[in-house]
Amino acid sequence: MQRTTVVLLLAFSAATFALDNGLMRTPPMGWLAWERFRCDIDCQDDPKNCISEVLFRDMADRLAEDGWRELGYVYVNIDDCWSSKERDAQGRLQPDPKRFPSGIANLARYVHDRGLKLGIYGDLGTYTCGGYPGTTLDKIKIDAQTFADWGIDMLKLDGCYSNATEQEKGYPLMTKALNATGRPIGYSCSWPAYQGGLPPNVNYTLLGEICNLWRNYGDIQDSWESVLDIVDWFTDHQDILQPAAGPGQWNDPDMLIIGDYGLSMDQSRSQMALWAIMAAPLLMSNDLRTLNSGARAILQNKVAIAINQDPLGIQGRRLIKEKSGIDVFWRPLSDGASALVFFSRRTDMPYRYQTSLKALNYTAGTYKVYDVFTEKPLPELKDATEFVVSVNPTGVVMWYVYPFAKWQEEVESVGFRNERTGSRFYRKEPKAHSPVVL
Amino acid sequence: MQRTTVVLLLAFSAATFALDNGLMRTPPMGWLAWERFRCDIDCQDDPKNCISEVLFRDMADRLAEDGWRELGYVYVNIDDCWSSKERDAQGRLQPDPKRFPSGIANLARYVHDRGLKLGIYGDLGTYTCGGYPGTTLDKIKIDAQTFADWGIDMLKLDGCYSNATEQEKGYPLMTKALNATGRPIGYSCSWPAYQGGLPPNVNYTLLGEICNLWRNYGDIQDSWESVLDIVDWFTDHQDILQPAAGPGQWNDPDMLIIGDYGLSMDQSRSQMALWAIMAAPLLMSNDLRTLNSGARAILQNKVAIAINQDPLGIQGRRLIKEKSGIDVFWRPLSDGASALVFFSRRTDMPYRYQTSLKALNYTAGTYKVYDVFTEKPLPELKDATEFVVSVNPTGVVMWYVYPFAKWQEEVESVGFRNERTGSRFYRKEPKAHSPVVL
Repeated sequence: MQRTTVVLLLAFSAATFALDNGLMRTPPMGWLAWERFRCDIDCQDDPKNCISEVLFRDMADRLAEDGWRELGYVYVNIDDCWSSKERDAQGRLQPDPKRFPSGIANLARYVHDRGLKLGIYGDLGTYTCGGYPGTTLDKIKIDAQTFADWGIDMLKLDGCYSNATEQEKGYPLMTKALNATGRPIGYSCSWPAYQGGLPPNVNYTLLGEICNLWRNYGDIQDSWESVLDIVDWFTDHQDILQPAAGPGQWNDPDMLIIGDYGLSMDQSRSQMALWAIMAAPLLMSNDLRTLNSGARAILQNKVAIAINQDPLGIQGRRLIKEKSGIDVFWRPLSDGASALVFFSRRTDMPYRYQTSLKALNYTAGTYKVYDVFTEKPLPELKDATEFVVSVNPTGVVMWYVYPFAKWQEEVESVGFRNERTGSRFYRKEPKAHSPVVL
Repeated sequence: MQRTTVVLLLAFSAATFALDNGLMRTPPMGWLAWERFRCDIDCQDDPKNCISEVLFRDMADRLAEDGWRELGYVYVNIDDCWSSKERDAQGRLQPDPKRFPSGIANLARYVHDRGLKLGIYGDLGTYTCGGYPGTTLDKIKIDAQTFADWGIDMLKLDGCYSNATEQEKGYPLMTKALNATGRPIGYSCSWPAYQGGLPPNVNYTLLGEICNLWRNYGDIQDSWESVLDIVDWFTDHQDILQPAAGPGQWNDPDMLIIGDYGLSMDQSRSQMALWAIMAAPLLMSNDLRTLNSGARAILQNKVAIAINQDPLGIQGRRLIKEKSGIDVFWRPLSDGASALVFFSRRTDMPYRYQTSLKALNYTAGTYKVYDVFTEKPLPELKDATEFVVSVNPTGVVMWYVYPFAKWQEEVESVGFRNERTGSRFYRKEPKAHSPVVL
C-alpha cells in the first residue's frame, strides 16, 4: 500500500509540474542572438547589428533561404534587451517601441510564414541580466500568457536578480504557466547554471520533468579557450550530466560560435563534433548574412547534424583521455550505429593516434566507417584491426560507425542513396531523425 | 685623453666581436620548419611531413613559384633534427643520411638556383634540444666553417644543454667564427631566451653587435593563447626591447603560425599586423603546399609587408591600453609615414572604438589613411577629427598613415600607381623598402 501511495503521489506531482508540450524530442536547432549581438541597442550608429526586428527578420530570411530550415535549424531566438524598460498599463511585457515598431506578434507571423519558430527571452528576477524588466514570481502567469498570445514557440528563462528560493519556486511555476496557455512553448531553463550545475544544489530529475533544455554552466565567449573550458566541464561531470539528457530534456553547453571571430576551421569542426556527441542544442549565434563558406559547410554538415539529432537521444561520453592529448568521445546511435570523435588538445602538429575499435569497447565484427568532415567512406574495419587517425591540433576526426551486417540488410531492403553525391550514405528521403547509413 | 681611450677600446672591441655580414637591414623573411613540422623524423609513415630534403625542396618550390620570393620571403630554414646522431670522421656535423641523402650542399644549391637562401640550425651545448649533436665551444669554428662550405646563408643557434657561462663565451665566439669564414651568414641567437630575456641578465647592446636577430622569449605554439602571451610579453617590456632593434639587429618574437590549425582569420590578421609593428622577422612555419587562400592573402599582404620592412627599421610600440580591451600600437616609418594598429582583446563582438589622430600624438595636419587589410583608402583625416573604427574580437584594424602634404609632393614628382589595382598606393617600381604612399 505504501508503494501505491508513492506512485500516486508521483503521478500527481507529474500532473502538476511536468512540462507537457511534447517538444524537442531531439535537441532544438536554430539561431540565438546573444553571443554575437549581445545587448547592442545602438540602432542609430549600428542599424544592421542592433537588437531590433530588422535583425530577426534578416536571420529568418537567411534560415529560410540559405538551406538552414531544411536541415532542422528552425528556431529564431531573441535574447536579452528586446523589451521596453517599462511594462504596459496592463502589466504586460512590451518590446522596445523604436526597435520593434511592428511588435512581437507581427515578428512571430513573419517567422512562422517562413516555416520557422520564434523564441524569446525572459528572466526570473527583478531585472534581466541586461537591466530590463524581469519576471518576478507574481508576473510568471501574465508573461507566459503574453508570450503565448504573441505566438512565441520557445522561452529562455534566465536567472539574474533572483535568489535560490525564488528560482526553486519560479522555474516550476513557469512550467505550469506555459502548460496552462495551451500553446506548445519550448522551455529553456538557466536555473542550474545559477546553482553551480551540480547536485546536491541541482536536481536533474526535476529539471528533466519541467524544462526541455537547461544551461548548466557559464556563458560561451567567442574564443577557443571558452569552448575548451565548457567541453572540459561537461566531460569532467559526464557521470552526472549524461544520464539527465534524453528526448525532450537536454543539457545545453550554450551556443555554437562557428562563423564568428575566435575559432579556426579546425576548432569550428571540433565544436560541431563535440556538440553533436553531447546531444547539445544547436543554436548558432553568428551573422548568417555574412557567414563564410567554411563555417557554413561545417554547420550544414548533414552527418554531424544527423548524429546530433539521433532519435534515441542518448548523450555521448568521453571514453578515453590519453596522456598524448588525444581524447576519444563516443555516442551510441539508433540502429546499432555510433559516433566516434578523436579530439586533439595538442598545439603542435597533427598527431597520429593508433587504436582499434575493440580497444574502444566495440563488439566483435566488421564495421562500415564514414568520415564526417572529409565526407568520405573508409575501408571496412574489423574490430580488432589497428588503425591510425591523424588528428590536427585543436581539431577532430569524427566517424559515423555502422555494423556491416546491418548495413547489408538495409541496403538490400531499401537501397539507400545520397542525393547530393550519389554515394550510399543517406536514406532516399532523409528525415530529420533518420540515421546515416553506410 | 680618457675619452680617446674609451673610444679606441670600443673600436677594438667592435673589431673583435661585431657581426660583419651587412645582412638583414630589414627583418629577415622566409620559412622555418620548427613550429609546423617539429622533430618529425618518421619518413616511413609520414614521408611528406618528416624533416628531410624533400620537405625543404618542396618549400623552396612553393616560395619560388607561388609569389613569395618576390615579396621578400627568401629564407628556407632548417630547424632541429636534421643531422646525424654522430659527427663524421673529421668531427664535422653531417645530415642524417637517410633523410638528406643528397647532402646539405646540394640542398643549398637547389635553394640558391631558385633565388632563395638556406638557413640551418645548431645548438650551443652538448646536444640540440632534440638530442642531436650540439656545438660545444671547441666545435664552434669547425661548425661555422662546415656551414659556410655548404653554402648556408643563415644560422639559428639554440641554447639547450649549455650553461650561462658557456653561452656568454659561445654566442660571441660564433660571431667571430662566422665572420672568419668570409661568407655572409645571418645569425639568429637564442641566447636571451635562455636568460629570461631581460637585463641585467641580457645585454641588448652586445646582442645588437653580435647577432642579426635574437629570440627573447619562449617558443610559439599553434594557439591564439600563445600569440597573445608573446605579444603581451614583448609589449610589457617594450621600453627595454624596442630600442634594441634596428637595421641588422632584430628582436624575434618567433614564427608566424598563420595558415596552421590554431588561429581564426581575425587572429591571423592580428599576428601579421603586430609582427609588422614589432619589426619582427617574418618566418612562416606552415605548410605552403596546402595553405588556404585566406592565410595566403594575409601573409602576402603587400602593405603589411612594406610596414614590416620599412628601411628606418624602428620597432613600434603600444601607445595605449584601454580598459575597453582595445590596444593601440604605432610604428614610425620612413618619409614621415606611420602605421597604426587597433587591436581588440575582447571576446564578444566588434567594438566601436572612437579616437582621433591627435589623441594618438599625431602632429597637426591632414593625413591620408589606407586600411591595410580591407585594402582600401579612407577619406582624408584631419588630426583633430574624431573617428570610429570597428575592431573585431581578437582582431585588428591596421592603418598606413601618410601626411597629405608629402603625398601631394610625391604624386607630382613621381606619379605613383599600384600595378595590381591601378590605384595610387605603390611606387611604379616597388622595392622591398619603398614606403607605401597614399
